Amino acid sequence: MITRKTNKVTRLLTLPITALALIASLATVAKEGMFTPEQLPLIKKDLVATGLEIPPESLTSLTKFPMGAVVSLGGCSASFVSEQGLVVTNHHCARGSVQFNSTAENNYLENGFVAKSFDEELPAAPGSRIYVTVDFKDVTNDVVGSLSSKLTGRERYDAIDRNKKRIIAECEKDEGHRCSVPSFHQGLEYKLIKQLEIKDVRIAYSPADSVGKYGGDIDNWMWPRHTGDFAFYRAYVGKDGKPADFSKDNVPFKPEHTLKVSAAGLDDGDFVMAAGYPGRTQRYQRLVTVEHVFGWSYPQWVSLIEQWIGTIERVAPEGSDARVKYESLLAGLNNFMKNTKGQLKGAKRVGLVERRAQREAELLTWIGDNKERQHYRKAISALDELETEISKFNKASFLYDNATRSQMLSAAKRLYRLAIEKQKPDAERESGYQERDFDRIKQSLQRIDRRFDAGVEQALWLMFIEKYAKQDKSQRVTAFDKHIGLNAKAFNKDKVAKRLASFYQKTELNNVDKRIALMDASVADLEASKDPFMQLAVATFKHGQEVENTEKVHAGKRASLRPQYMKAIIAWQDSLGLLAYPDANSTLRVTYGNVIGGSPKDGMIYEPFTRVEGIVEKDTGEEPFNSPKKQLELIKDKKYGDYALKTLGTVPVNFLTDLDSTGGNSGSATMNSKGELIGLLFDGTFESVNSDWDFDPRTTRTIHVDSRYMLWVMEYVDDAKHLVDEMDIVK
Amino acid sequence: MITRKTNKVTRLLTLPITALALIASLATVAKEGMFTPEQLPLIKKDLVATGLEIPPESLTSLTKFPMGAVVSLGGCSASFVSEQGLVVTNHHCARGSVQFNSTAENNYLENGFVAKSFDEELPAAPGSRIYVTVDFKDVTNDVVGSLSSKLTGRERYDAIDRNKKRIIAECEKDEGHRCSVPSFHQGLEYKLIKQLEIKDVRIAYSPADSVGKYGGDIDNWMWPRHTGDFAFYRAYVGKDGKPADFSKDNVPFKPEHTLKVSAAGLDDGDFVMAAGYPGRTQRYQRLVTVEHVFGWSYPQWVSLIEQWIGTIERVAPEGSDARVKYESLLAGLNNFMKNTKGQLKGAKRVGLVERRAQREAELLTWIGDNKERQHYRKAISALDELETEISKFNKASFLYDNATRSQMLSAAKRLYRLAIEKQKPDAERESGYQERDFDRIKQSLQRIDRRFDAGVEQALWLMFIEKYAKQDKSQRVTAFDKHIGLNAKAFNKDKVAKRLASFYQKTELNNVDKRIALMDASVADLEASKDPFMQLAVATFKHGQEVENTEKVHAGKRASLRPQYMKAIIAWQDSLGLLAYPDANSTLRVTYGNVIGGSPKDGMIYEPFTRVEGIVEKDTGEEPFNSPKKQLELIKDKKYGDYALKTLGTVPVNFLTDLDSTGGNSGSATMNSKGELIGLLFDGTFESVNSDWDFDPRTTRTIHVDSRYMLWVMEYVDDAKHLVDEMDIVK
Repeated sequence: MITRKTNKVTRLLTLPITALALIASLATVAKEGMFTPEQLPLIKKDLVATGLEIPPESLTSLTKFPMGAVVSLGGCSASFVSEQGLVVTNHHCARGSVQFNSTAENNYLENGFVAKSFDEELPAAPGSRIYVTVDFKDVTNDVVGSLSSKLTGRERYDAIDRNKKRIIAECEKDEGHRCSVPSFHQGLEYKLIKQLEIKDVRIAYSPADSVGKYGGDIDNWMWPRHTGDFAFYRAYVGKDGKPADFSKDNVPFKPEHTLKVSAAGLDDGDFVMAAGYPGRTQRYQRLVTVEHVFGWSYPQWVSLIEQWIGTIERVAPEGSDARVKYESLLAGLNNFMKNTKGQLKGAKRVGLVERRAQREAELLTWIGDNKERQHYRKAISALDELETEISKFNKASFLYDNATRSQMLSAAKRLYRLAIEKQKPDAERESGYQERDFDRIKQSLQRIDRRFDAGVEQALWLMFIEKYAKQDKSQRVTAFDKHIGLNAKAFNKDKVAKRLASFYQKTELNNVDKRIALMDASVADLEASKDPFMQLAVATFKHGQEVENTEKVHAGKRASLRPQYMKAIIAWQDSLGLLAYPDANSTLRVTYGNVIGGSPKDGMIYEPFTRVEGIVEKDTGEEPFNSPKKQLELIKDKKYGDYALKTLGTVPVNFLTDLDSTGGNSGSATMNSKGELIGLLFDGTFESVNSDWDFDPRTTRTIHVDSRYMLWVMEYVDDAKHLVDEMDIVK
Repeated sequence: MITRKTNKVTRLLTLPITALALIASLATVAKEGMFTPEQLPLIKKDLVATGLEIPPESLTSLTKFPMGAVVSLGGCSASFVSEQGLVVTNHHCARGSVQFNSTAENNYLENGFVAKSFDEELPAAPGSRIYVTVDFKDVTNDVVGSLSSKLTGRERYDAIDRNKKRIIAECEKDEGHRCSVPSFHQGLEYKLIKQLEIKDVRIAYSPADSVGKYGGDIDNWMWPRHTGDFAFYRAYVGKDGKPADFSKDNVPFKPEHTLKVSAAGLDDGDFVMAAGYPGRTQRYQRLVTVEHVFGWSYPQWVSLIEQWIGTIERVAPEGSDARVKYESLLAGLNNFMKNTKGQLKGAKRVGLVERRAQREAELLTWIGDNKERQHYRKAISALDELETEISKFNKASFLYDNATRSQMLSAAKRLYRLAIEKQKPDAERESGYQERDFDRIKQSLQRIDRRFDAGVEQALWLMFIEKYAKQDKSQRVTAFDKHIGLNAKAFNKDKVAKRLASFYQKTELNNVDKRIALMDASVADLEASKDPFMQLAVATFKHGQEVENTEKVHAGKRASLRPQYMKAIIAWQDSLGLLAYPDANSTLRVTYGNVIGGSPKDGMIYEPFTRVEGIVEKDTGEEPFNSPKKQLELIKDKKYGDYALKTLGTVPVNFLTDLDSTGGNSGSATMNSKGELIGLLFDGTFESVNSDWDFDPRTTRTIHVDSRYMLWVMEYVDDAKHLVDEMDIVK
């Protein structure tokens, strides 16, 4: 969570004795910290001590080398690796685009895809974007500088929302750009980030699933790992150099900065850093929230998702057409469940609750040491009260939220809200319903078809409604109950099932053209609609507004209290000579450390590298362990080219580091001490899933694909040597 | 399989390249070989080079120190550790006795059991025995020396059987002894083993399941491991020093030899050996058999057992009374399936079929090199023909065998056979039906009650019969079909189910007293019986006799061919300077090597020791990870006493070695270079399950409980210091 400013990075929180004993044998201890680039000079001594060879100051600017080469794909990270706009990212980040272009005849997922020339490059999936940061500045004063401390929660929320929209609108006047105003340290600071939004993204090269997704779901989050999780996009812009929609006439984008790619790679213990866009961490959540999430929310989700998966598997049996549409959801649910169970287990292992309680007690002691710090105590106490209230509110609405998650109902609600918002001037509309959002709304309405089957939807809806209907009456929503036919009597499953079936029989929202057309409907049109889902959306709108208002009140109050709490944390840490970094918020962060194995548990050790020979060892010939024959032959013949790591005697496939990462970091450029690309970050070990809440230095390990394996596959397995030649390879 | 006679032990068979690359980093390579004690002088150079400090010759006598202290429990191994007849073995070998003595009020499984004095020691489960070897000699000449090469298969079988029975009967004239004539090298040699049969066995101390079975089925075959798999029996004899049934007047047995127990233990790389009674290995099976087992038999079993488990779980749902009776069978089936699947996977990984084919080709080349070796070729060719025939025969009778495995039917068949055999003089009766076997028959008839529920039995029988009935008609047995009501028409499940139900309604064999009483029934009595199971047993007897005859013909032919094959193997290995050891056959064997970690797969390393801190780490408070609170406290307080391993900084729990072991080795004394007990062998790693067929030096690892943990638990966790004091502890 926190790192020492001056010299050797150390842990703020004491570890349980066991862990300490066990890590004693490891060379170093994992480094915690997802630093904003501008924080790096504050810890430059440690950066240099850890092995960074370029000046730490060179990392601070988001628009200069090397950070200027690091881009966001929205959800994934990536980086420019040639002056012709070539972008490297994870296979799993680009796989949707490969799938989009695949047909029964040309199954690129199965065979891989290599464009032999620019002409052969294929458009990425609709909505694919590359965001290149071009400006970055502090706008805290513009967002909250003028706000009175007397504002109510709702007033504060609205004022911040208004200010952010204004700043964004101003920024986006520069065509081709997307702007955002994320908050740092939970509202203590706001930054404006301006990004070039490249819309013509093409797939240049992707290895086959049998390389890029080797090990599949079985190996997901697992070490030892042998996944070639890399792929290449190319950014295209109009002839004028500005972002443009796909066109044959577009030309490759010329990035200002690119990364050199190292064919020499690195060895155990070497310095390593990664730059990317981690999504969200919860390292400063209060104990009351930790207890709510791990004591109530996660267990609820696990049990709900088990039923959810069970229902899909029952209604859409393997091999059915419906199943195809839900494979992706099923994979996501299974993934979420594995992760959540891992988190619950991990929280117990590291003593999350006890550690958080201890930290809060220490903070209070520090506050108690000085009279001038007493205002912190008041703010923290108010924050705990607020968070408790929010947890209660979430608990009460949990089953209603799920009972209204039907895809058709969601579409109806979205369309009705859009019609309402469109009555206002653009600047005043709710976020997500402004002109700048229309493309995304349309895409989301289009996407439904690929993942929708009425039979499955009905069964799922019934499952959710049954849970909702059987809870305490006080948490039921009258307008919803009335419309669905839930009365005061005991839940009549058959009757409700019939009613839900009638919704799907009568609706026209299952037609994509109708859905899109309704984007232009007026409020009156929709209120007169005979579509049962639209009627339900209209009937429950008032309740939805009440919920939204409560949430905004909560957000407004948080926006006032959390910055004070974070101020206390930062000051307290500073008094200890430590630097607090902000929770992840999908902005560019740098994490650094070393190549290092680990000990996930007593008696077992993870080696820092895996070897290509491990692929042969794992290979069964059947998915997901079905390496291309050519690769197996090359390995058996020890045709390593120049890509072997001497100390290993072979080509390394994946490696472990002690870097601090989370979802969104996928595709992050992993760099050596000179800022050269030596791999891509793509996963964490199973023992690390808990690190979003509490970084356990003993078990938190990040997994990367090694640039040597990447280049070896390109040169010897796939026929992609021309891309290797296009990049600036250093040895 | 084979070890170099002269110096450094090396592998006969080349490893795949991958494995070689991976093991390069390990200190040494695992040693293969389950040697008979008399073989040890032949490899004494390697024993000394590996670290043995006592003269290798001292290990050769089964009746002198230290081997004289090593005993068999029949299925498990053990050793004497005090002059008062104290015997140490695995917790899982003694657990049945603890269970037998447990009641709701005194749940010794849950609480552990410590007898504070000899008086408090409790009788072990009925049938518990301690076998102390008192004599051992070669009787090959007596068994097969006079047999003509012209005998038919059946004649040879009968002659060998007759000779063995005669030798055994002669030997057992010495009251209180049990004798056996196992064959070595598949019939090349026969030895007479004479064992004192101690019948009054008592339980002196067993830790609670939460120590002795820590990790339960989840950790079974797994590393890292933290199981305190040890317990203590005490041997009692009559006042005259001779074996006697349980009596209050009996006295502790005074063994001639005992092992000292080391509290100093050992460290990574140290010499280690284990002596015990490994059950059965298949390292010399011919390729045709390997292909039959791995290509047909194992996959058939896996699929059958999946249905078997499914049926039990359906008919005896969790929590039902019936389920309690089948828990043990379910555990066994799951265990078998996990093992078999592991073997199938392992066979693929090590290339079992390819390696066996290569070995057989090399042997043929060696035979081809010299005209005088041509008789081997003929014998081997005939053996392959025979084994192919046997595989076919087994395939054909697979489903009938399963359709007749009903417990009631088995009891009926056994009783009818007993009546028939009793018509002959004792010496001429079939093995298993002689006077010496009556106790065991009675015990097996008694045991049924604890594991029998008519509903479950019926469902299982129906499941087996349905599979049997649906196979090719040529493999059906008319007498059986007629009696069960299977006719030429399509299988009518309801009708057959009714018929089977009537068996269970009418039978009296479900009454234990009736079963026991029938041990005295005459053939005529039983043939006149109205019990449907007895009638079925009588009706299918003739078919059973035919099958038995075929099997005896096969066994007789094998007894002629296999020794010739083994002679070739031994001579070939000898020509290479290697020593062939016989397949395991439940006789005393010695295996030696070093304490050593391992690499089960690329990227992962097993440490050689686990630490008590690993228990805290694994502990969830719920079975099977529910360590006694007292133990957790002691670990947290670092109260290691004198039992810490310095290089580890704590008390070691379990450790890994490269010893060669298999089922039956459980409880084997693990000794240091001086022959002092430093632990007990209790399991192999999951990657080792395949080693019964093919020893893979990279992944085969044996798991032991460390004597330091044993003594630490006895002294600090359980109140068993008096037993520590009773033993001869060395530092």
